[in-house]
Amino acid sequence: MVNEIQQTSSASSSSRSDGGSSSGSESSKDNSRCSTPVLDADRHERLREKMRRRQEAGDRWFSLEFFPPRTANAAVNLISRFDRMGAGGPLFIDVTWHPAGDPGSDKETSSMIIANTAVNYCGLETILHMTCCNQTKDDITGHLQKAKRLGLKNIMALRGDPSGEEWEEEVDGFNHAVDLVKHIRNEFDDYFDICVAGYPKGHPEAESYEADLRHLKEKVFAGADFIITQLFFRPETFLKFMKDCQAIGITCPIIPGIFPIQGYHSLRQLVKLSKLEVPQEIKDVIEPIKDNDAAIRNYGVELAVSMCRELLDSGMVHGLHFYTLNREVATTEVLKRLGLWREDPRRPLPWAVSAHPKRRVEDVRPIFWASRPKSYIYRTQEWDDFPNGRWGNSSSPAFGELKDYYLFYLKSKSPREELLKMWGEELTSEESVFEVFTCYITGEPNRNGYKVTCMPWNDDPLATETNLLKDELERVNRRGILTINSQPNINGKPSTDPIVGWGPSGGYVFQKAYLEFFTSSEIVTALLKVLKKYEQRVNYHIVNVKGQNITNAPDLQPNAVTWGIFPGREIIQPTVVDPVSFLSWKDEAFALWIEQWAKLYEEESPSRMIIQYIHDNYYLVNLVDNDFPLENCLWQVVEDTFELLN
Amino acid sequence: MVNEIQQTSSASSSSRSDGGSSSGSESSKDNSRCSTPVLDADRHERLREKMRRRQEAGDRWFSLEFFPPRTANAAVNLISRFDRMGAGGPLFIDVTWHPAGDPGSDKETSSMIIANTAVNYCGLETILHMTCCNQTKDDITGHLQKAKRLGLKNIMALRGDPSGEEWEEEVDGFNHAVDLVKHIRNEFDDYFDICVAGYPKGHPEAESYEADLRHLKEKVFAGADFIITQLFFRPETFLKFMKDCQAIGITCPIIPGIFPIQGYHSLRQLVKLSKLEVPQEIKDVIEPIKDNDAAIRNYGVELAVSMCRELLDSGMVHGLHFYTLNREVATTEVLKRLGLWREDPRRPLPWAVSAHPKRRVEDVRPIFWASRPKSYIYRTQEWDDFPNGRWGNSSSPAFGELKDYYLFYLKSKSPREELLKMWGEELTSEESVFEVFTCYITGEPNRNGYKVTCMPWNDDPLATETNLLKDELERVNRRGILTINSQPNINGKPSTDPIVGWGPSGGYVFQKAYLEFFTSSEIVTALLKVLKKYEQRVNYHIVNVKGQNITNAPDLQPNAVTWGIFPGREIIQPTVVDPVSFLSWKDEAFALWIEQWAKLYEEESPSRMIIQYIHDNYYLVNLVDNDFPLENCLWQVVEDTFELLN
Repeated sequence: MVNEIQQTSSASSSSRSDGGSSSGSESSKDNSRCSTPVLDADRHERLREKMRRRQEAGDRWFSLEFFPPRTANAAVNLISRFDRMGAGGPLFIDVTWHPAGDPGSDKETSSMIIANTAVNYCGLETILHMTCCNQTKDDITGHLQKAKRLGLKNIMALRGDPSGEEWEEEVDGFNHAVDLVKHIRNEFDDYFDICVAGYPKGHPEAESYEADLRHLKEKVFAGADFIITQLFFRPETFLKFMKDCQAIGITCPIIPGIFPIQGYHSLRQLVKLSKLEVPQEIKDVIEPIKDNDAAIRNYGVELAVSMCRELLDSGMVHGLHFYTLNREVATTEVLKRLGLWREDPRRPLPWAVSAHPKRRVEDVRPIFWASRPKSYIYRTQEWDDFPNGRWGNSSSPAFGELKDYYLFYLKSKSPREELLKMWGEELTSEESVFEVFTCYITGEPNRNGYKVTCMPWNDDPLATETNLLKDELERVNRRGILTINSQPNINGKPSTDPIVGWGPSGGYVFQKAYLEFFTSSEIVTALLKVLKKYEQRVNYHIVNVKGQNITNAPDLQPNAVTWGIFPGREIIQPTVVDPVSFLSWKDEAFALWIEQWAKLYEEESPSRMIIQYIHDNYYLVNLVDNDFPLENCLWQVVEDTFELLN
Repeated sequence: MVNEIQQTSSASSSSRSDGGSSSGSESSKDNSRCSTPVLDADRHERLREKMRRRQEAGDRWFSLEFFPPRTANAAVNLISRFDRMGAGGPLFIDVTWHPAGDPGSDKETSSMIIANTAVNYCGLETILHMTCCNQTKDDITGHLQKAKRLGLKNIMALRGDPSGEEWEEEVDGFNHAVDLVKHIRNEFDDYFDICVAGYPKGHPEAESYEADLRHLKEKVFAGADFIITQLFFRPETFLKFMKDCQAIGITCPIIPGIFPIQGYHSLRQLVKLSKLEVPQEIKDVIEPIKDNDAAIRNYGVELAVSMCRELLDSGMVHGLHFYTLNREVATTEVLKRLGLWREDPRRPLPWAVSAHPKRRVEDVRPIFWASRPKSYIYRTQEWDDFPNGRWGNSSSPAFGELKDYYLFYLKSKSPREELLKMWGEELTSEESVFEVFTCYITGEPNRNGYKVTCMPWNDDPLATETNLLKDELERVNRRGILTINSQPNINGKPSTDPIVGWGPSGGYVFQKAYLEFFTSSEIVTALLKVLKKYEQRVNYHIVNVKGQNITNAPDLQPNAVTWGIFPGREIIQPTVVDPVSFLSWKDEAFALWIEQWAKLYEEESPSRMIIQYIHDNYYLVNLVDNDFPLENCLWQVVEDTFELLN
């Protein structure tokens, strides 16, 4: 890539060479620069720009449609699905508007909140559907304002299905999607990217196919940025529609809506709702196997793959939109077979970024929330600025409190009964707690034969990176160093390393070894003696639930523990150990003992009292080995501590 | 070091746990943090705090007094002396107020401008003397405002010698130093650190020694922060004075003024001015050798060393103030013998920092000015903010123009005749210019037998670090790659490395290889072909005097080329290659051909036309090898280019 820089600034400066002194105040204004090296162009572009860039680069992409779930439990599962399917690299997801489900409310199953969660907590570019019929201007403006506040940037503007039999158009009301498009542009200018629906066979209520095309053109000319189509069964249906659109002057992207047939009943229901007709050749295949779900799904996948191939091969299609019906298998299978599923996801940063526009510049976080990124996002949601470049001096970053551990996107995926099986129906001593930690590390079943696949501080099995430290972790957990977070030291591995890599290719990533654990005050006393030998090499922070805190951090400065060096960019240092944030994390980490573990047991029960004892008396410790090019000394620190105790 | 963190923020947050949602606006305010990892506490403390910290740590220190020179040439030399003596690590220097020399003016020999240069361009903590008698309040306020504006933070408040025989105290005027102290505190609150003079033998005009002590106490109680004494000849004089001060309640630091006798006449003159009496034992030694300067100086050094030792050994003295008389040898000798001269200066950053308070947070600069740091400071003097943490996105940092290449602190130390001997009385071809560059690199004499010790872009001989690249540099300069800046790649050397180290101990420093040179358009054409093979690995910027510019920098982002990883701190990345600043540097780098070289020759002379031709037709090129862990590929790039040309 070769850029020709415009020479204006330089030219004007040399033309001033005869005049007086350089203009001070102007200069200093120009000097307030954003300090974000663009690591990931995606974070800085709006959806329509991403689409344009992908198309120009000849990239192919996909997107995924979901509907809001009915129950809180289903919401938990849907969010996990967002995380899993998000890893495949959709350009965006969209969440349908469910008028009967109080879609703009704060309920955990509302369209608004599901979309909010996708953007903020799963980091997905998200389109929120919105329908307008039977609603007042104020209602709609309120919904849009709320969406904007939550960080949503894209709206799919729809008319929606009128409720009640005798719906009639209202004068000055929202009668068509185009009214909503106009309203959004009037009230919110260019803030939102707007998507509208296209009907390859014409809208069932339209006077004619041609009339419907004209309506579509109206929507686009009113300000829509792109079109997603209703599902269709034959590729030629879409290709004809696209040509017809172009013929009447619609030039924006038109994305085909793909519906992989996943079962007999879902197909029938969808067909009924959309008033589409299933082609005879498909009916002929399906009817005979209608009770064999697997067979239908296989056929559906096959059909979708072949249709998508034809669309992509036409050269007219760059992106495919999938109606997932909130299911994972069929769509994923189609995407994998098309080669669109990102097999080796490149992480732009070592942690999962949020897609809220406010957080666009965020590129550094304390390491403490590494396994609880959604909690970190929740506790910093009120921040107006996000640290960028450096975490900065530790003048009390104000973390919101984590008072509700049951927020559906923070909730454990496992129900109480499972947790009890993993963590012990009955605890008899501190040592039985050590065992739980050890089983989580080793992956071995506990004494009752159950694998421990999550912990209060980690809702997922051990990270691949942590696996590198498995043997050492097992040894120390057995002896009461109850580890909840750790990373190995890394001295310049390629940024494309499948385990520890992140950021653009061609770079090098580095880490300081980190270890965080709960442990008893006896061990802390010995540890502090041992640490004297390691002064400067090892930084430590040791704190109990009451906030008694011991550290050797110079001037309470943060310590960068992960950083990357990339071609043509400034240094990126995405994780730090910040002494002050540690005290906010401490509150959360100690509370998790009670909220997630102790409360599984009856009040006053011995099990509960053991956890309460640990909560009240143990210390939370973190250690950093600053000498990242040498062998990690933290295990030796722990060994020395045990030796001193014996 | 063990810090107990106050738990206020955390405690208040848990006491809020019953109340509503976390308070958003408060949080975000708290979140605007300074992002300066404190690398060098010295940059962040005021002088009195530095003194206190040194005393508490049991460190010993020294300071140096200079007077403003009479001529511009002497000013150039004095600034070089500041640079050299600054390397020895004085806690501060001070510049006397020379009422006859228009001390508050903008003349290059004024007290104000010499102090300004020391602070801003030499990075020295500086005290400006100021006298008050025979001056109006407005004059004095004006001087103080100007001092503040220039970044001076310390004033030595003196009465000064009244001019004219019949001086009388004025009612409401400035009759004594204490009036000036009060005025500074009234008008500038606590902005300045104030020093006052103490007279170990009593002021010659004082009624008595006791009365003079009372005056001193008045000055301290009016707001002075510390005392520097008049010179004295016997340590017991000072120690008695110090005890007497303490006895009447003076508790601030009292710094003995040390005067190493450097010559017979300077001693006589000083004694006359200060109305002090030289003890007989000293007279007895000096009189017989009064015409032997070296002998007197040796004796003076001996005497000063033994007096300083006695003072330091008393345990009452932590710092020594030297009256240098603007000379270097005697004072440096005394300091070296006392072990106070910093033999291994630790650089806080790879470039020389400025001591202006505005620049306290500055920790990143473009690499282009590496050999012209004073020019960089000059061209950014109007900035209100300085980049910190990251250079940031390249939205036109507004550099002031460098229109006066003859500013005394930017002026070459060599006169025109010497420059002609080094760079050629007569140039015959571009090749004779190549030869000058080559001789500068090799240190070999040129064809007329003169060593080339400076170049328009480098006023000093080759840096030690550049010496590491000497052979390669010689080879390429011979062939018309005229190098003006370079650094080798470094993959994690200790921060204490004597050649490439910087920052606190215990860290690791890194560099990407960098090469900057002028070269012909033929070579550039070949180079661009070669660079295609190195895409991503090598970033380049190639520009001619007209501003035609070719680069492969991604999105014109800056590229960090020097960084350091330290215990318990965030990453420091003090130098970047910034595509946009390069265009401002380009103007300066091209102009130096004309201003410093071409103008040595007659207009229309062939020599001048050769330099003008190079200026008009050559390109300025910079190259960065991003793969710092591998062997530097830039030499291979250049070899490949030459090969392509053959």
